[in-house]
Amino acid sequence: MAEGGLFHSCHGYNARMNATQTRPLPIGVFDSGVGGLTVLKALREALPAEDLMYLGDTARLPYGTKSPASISRYACQATRHLQQQGIKLLVVACNTASAVALDALREQMAPLPVIGVVEPGATAAVGTRPGASHLVLATEATVRLGAYRHAIAARDPGATVRELACEMLVSLAEEGWTTGDIATAVIRRYLGLLPEEARAPDSIILGCTHFPLLRDAIAEVVAPGTMIVDSASTTAQAASTMLDDLGLRSDKPAGGLRLFATDGASRFARVGGRFLGESLDASDITLVDL
Amino acid sequence: MAEGGLFHSCHGYNARMNATQTRPLPIGVFDSGVGGLTVLKALREALPAEDLMYLGDTARLPYGTKSPASISRYACQATRHLQQQGIKLLVVACNTASAVALDALREQMAPLPVIGVVEPGATAAVGTRPGASHLVLATEATVRLGAYRHAIAARDPGATVRELACEMLVSLAEEGWTTGDIATAVIRRYLGLLPEEARAPDSIILGCTHFPLLRDAIAEVVAPGTMIVDSASTTAQAASTMLDDLGLRSDKPAGGLRLFATDGASRFARVGGRFLGESLDASDITLVDL
Repeated sequence: MAEGGLFHSCHGYNARMNATQTRPLPIGVFDSGVGGLTVLKALREALPAEDLMYLGDTARLPYGTKSPASISRYACQATRHLQQQGIKLLVVACNTASAVALDALREQMAPLPVIGVVEPGATAAVGTRPGASHLVLATEATVRLGAYRHAIAARDPGATVRELACEMLVSLAEEGWTTGDIATAVIRRYLGLLPEEARAPDSIILGCTHFPLLRDAIAEVVAPGTMIVDSASTTAQAASTMLDDLGLRSDKPAGGLRLFATDGASRFARVGGRFLGESLDASDITLVDL
Repeated sequence: MAEGGLFHSCHGYNARMNATQTRPLPIGVFDSGVGGLTVLKALREALPAEDLMYLGDTARLPYGTKSPASISRYACQATRHLQQQGIKLLVVACNTASAVALDALREQMAPLPVIGVVEPGATAAVGTRPGASHLVLATEATVRLGAYRHAIAARDPGATVRELACEMLVSLAEEGWTTGDIATAVIRRYLGLLPEEARAPDSIILGCTHFPLLRDAIAEVVAPGTMIVDSASTTAQAASTMLDDLGLRSDKPAGGLRLFATDGASRFARVGGRFLGESLDASDITLVDL
């Protein structure tokens, strides 16, 4: 995208802005709840000079069990808040919304660039080798939509993909029971639902933003040598590349962080702190009514 | 309530109705999702001649992690649908909504009688003996609000009450993992969070409508002789008594059932079937947009 070619929608107006004006703006990160904070954490590590603005639509979580039409409507409503604040890139840090609503969000945000978590994960997974076998652990909605199946097939038609709905892993992550006997028993039970030959894939894709917290427990259970693809870090790398390609990297010494939620600031702080990897207080979160 | 003393709000009008007109109307049952189907199941067993109308606000579940203000607003919006269909009694088959929104719902529904799940459970628990010790297993919101603590203290000021948030039990029930090693390990882990002296109470109250599905697993873990109070069956008994007291018991040979949800009919059918104890098809559920 050339300088001066960016339109930035702010407070309901479309204003033509050039890269110099756009560069200092924050990256907007959106999720249905706190899970996307694993993506936010990876973005902070990959892009420490960027301002980040996170919105968790906690009033309407979880998106994973809702219908595609509702998910799309909610995602568009919620991200409009970030759009109105002024951002230079939207990261959809929610697998369900990435699977269902990415086209709708790109249309709403255009010409603002929008990155989801599914595509970077699929790209990283097919990087193992052509014709590899992939196992996607995700929520029910992501599985039902075949989001990773489609994204991987588009990149490597010879690949084998299995998708497995693992809703209990969401609860384990939120409860903070991410290691130990219960976590490994739950993971073993899910993997036990697969036919024998599917239990040692080349890659396991963590297709829900909650699952990076269970990475160690998953690694303990799966065959050694299985590549574990973490959509948080792959998405942060994609965002970094995107900013470089568009000439939009911040030149500040250090970036700040603003957190918004649509409900339940104290729960957001308590559970979200585990996901972000630093302690949060309810006063760190601004509640917004969409 | 005397004959002719019931006001029934229908299609936005308050119409004076007598017991003869009111008696054939269904009982309305409301929950944030499918959990309340355990209460519906108990109601069908206790009151086989009654028509039942169930609404699960699946578009906005779970209520358990949301703020009191949102829970109250959602509960009032959702139950208005049942009110407009015409019902003779509202059963709030959701512990969180019973804890937070019962007063608001009674005001909205007046003079229609409204029964929650907290009060019947508290009444049954204090029936063990005066000054007994009670352990409430519930969602975070129910615990935070101290719903059972207050209801038990009002009935027996000498009772001891501990409340324990057990969100993972919700996932276990929805996933159908209600027996076996993982279920008992999760229950043991929650009970292990209590001080030693609190692990053998006189009663354990299942303070979430999902938990009756885990009754056997809970019974396996707790000390023999502990009374397990199931809010589904105690609420059904309270509804039965209420209909008798008001002279509103149906005189039909058999009651029917209508199911409404605000989202995701196929998931409602699949998960809800386990809760209701009979197989459901997505076509059995009517979607409503609130």
